[in-house]
Amino acid sequence: MTWQFEHVTLGQRVRFGTGTAADDVAAEVARLGSRRVLLISSKPVPEVTAKIDVAAHCTDVAPHVPVENAERARALALESGADLLVSVGGGSTTGLAKAVALTTGLPIVAVPTTYAGSEATNVWGLTEAARKTTGVDDRVLPVTVVYDAALTASLPLDLSIASGCNALAHCVDSMWAPRADPINQALALEGVRALSRGLRLVSDAEGRELMLHGAYLAAVAFASAGSGLHHKICHVLGGAYNLPHAQTHTAILPHVLAFNAPAVPEAAARITEALGGGLLDLYDEIGASHELHGVPDVREAARLVLPSVPESNPRPVTEDDLISLLAAAQKGLDA
Amino acid sequence: MTWQFEHVTLGQRVRFGTGTAADDVAAEVARLGSRRVLLISSKPVPEVTAKIDVAAHCTDVAPHVPVENAERARALALESGADLLVSVGGGSTTGLAKAVALTTGLPIVAVPTTYAGSEATNVWGLTEAARKTTGVDDRVLPVTVVYDAALTASLPLDLSIASGCNALAHCVDSMWAPRADPINQALALEGVRALSRGLRLVSDAEGRELMLHGAYLAAVAFASAGSGLHHKICHVLGGAYNLPHAQTHTAILPHVLAFNAPAVPEAAARITEALGGGLLDLYDEIGASHELHGVPDVREAARLVLPSVPESNPRPVTEDDLISLLAAAQKGLDA
Repeated sequence: MTWQFEHVTLGQRVRFGTGTAADDVAAEVARLGSRRVLLISSKPVPEVTAKIDVAAHCTDVAPHVPVENAERARALALESGADLLVSVGGGSTTGLAKAVALTTGLPIVAVPTTYAGSEATNVWGLTEAARKTTGVDDRVLPVTVVYDAALTASLPLDLSIASGCNALAHCVDSMWAPRADPINQALALEGVRALSRGLRLVSDAEGRELMLHGAYLAAVAFASAGSGLHHKICHVLGGAYNLPHAQTHTAILPHVLAFNAPAVPEAAARITEALGGGLLDLYDEIGASHELHGVPDVREAARLVLPSVPESNPRPVTEDDLISLLAAAQKGLDA
Repeated sequence: MTWQFEHVTLGQRVRFGTGTAADDVAAEVARLGSRRVLLISSKPVPEVTAKIDVAAHCTDVAPHVPVENAERARALALESGADLLVSVGGGSTTGLAKAVALTTGLPIVAVPTTYAGSEATNVWGLTEAARKTTGVDDRVLPVTVVYDAALTASLPLDLSIASGCNALAHCVDSMWAPRADPINQALALEGVRALSRGLRLVSDAEGRELMLHGAYLAAVAFASAGSGLHHKICHVLGGAYNLPHAQTHTAILPHVLAFNAPAVPEAAARITEALGGGLLDLYDEIGASHELHGVPDVREAARLVLPSVPESNPRPVTEDDLISLLAAAQKGLDA
């Protein structure tokens, strides 16, 4: 072993509790000396804003942050004289707040209600004419994240599981991503531990706390380590065939893990240990779907994916490897 | 379980390699646009500065950062027109750089040569008339840490072990410190894992890499979690009886762990797992000293320590508990 790496830790504050979001958000508004809050959320969220004044409310949330929505939100931020963005919602909501922060420099207090993890990264995304542009800018990193497991209680079970498995994929893929290092691997493994326990207990407050904690670690690890083989496959397939995000991740992950495991036996063993067993056993236990749907031709899909395979992948990847991997995922075969 | 916590992650860059310090420091000087480096190190360090220009060199390093030394270093920083501090050394050297940063606002690139961990914290300390003052200020946090395991190869074995055990104490105590939370606990446990492996391999480059990695995680965890029972005991005893820092930590740690373990069985089990066995077994294997020396009267010592016991300690602590704990440490009894 000889380690050589450059690791960037992003500075951020986390406030964590169950049923404490209103207090935590009020504490952050006071700490940051904010006088005019722009709330970004698709609907009113009195359970979060009960103890603050809201100067303006932007409800213009849409998937993948259309640039028109971003422009309207930016205009509202200027008009309202906002000095702080408080976002309450899933990845699309956090993404809209980031789009506003990107041009205005306004700080964000993010209150996530899913396990998407965008709140812990400095990555932004905007969609214009069906094309998504992404970038990295420290100004879009929320200064504070407020996690409250009471806010995820109303998330439907299937969405909770899909969103949690998506977070799990952030962790697993971080183990061999281009900028994987022992620091983000440690965070990723703890994320696996928290998510696998949380997914098994998702109907309880304890399980939801574990999942929020795990999703946070997953995002920190993933933002630091970058996209590995798993995310490259899912990104290309998702774009080419317009596949559902979380389900595709869930179906692909066990096969990427099985493919890479022989090349990184120590990492694989630590993943298994953190999972408390095999990934497919976890899927069975929580009722996650195994099967990849919506890919008409795995040979074509493999050709599309091949150029995106990260050079840093611990095992060389051929077109035939990808065909086998995708075919197995399609059949829902045991990885 | 219901988690409620506030966690602050400090933003920082780490560059890690063996034999790469000169390149990494040059890369940071370039990245930060520095034109005038003030080097802070007790002796010339060409293996670190070979690829940069040094405008001035402060060698005025002394334990606990006497305020006179800090003043001279600050004056040199101003006179030399320095725009960056590069510190190369152990805790005292990093501490001197922090003292300069505190008043000048100059950024620090820290190159640690021991496992003290000061490079990853925003804590500063100054000693005036034999009284140490400490404080917390984000300006003293090095912007970048350069870890190079080649630089610790010349550290004598006994110092390596003592310094490594001191780092281990940062990790273990973080598990129940006042601001312990699942994030800093995860970092602490990974620190235990790296340090216990590293201590067993300290004569190899691999072992020294593990120890630097572990010392970094230990410092991040400790800065976030605060001082627990172990550090309070060591701090009071060290001040009252002028005890050697690292050896005192080494002797006290197993007894604090044994005392707290029944109250936090899950944390204790995870520590044991990360250690790869008992702490005293590790001590025996690496030849660390078990015995507490230099405390003339454990009853008096216990009285001195009692007011400093953290309220958050997972088990209530009586004066008798402290007497038993200190007596056992003195006798080098198995914890």
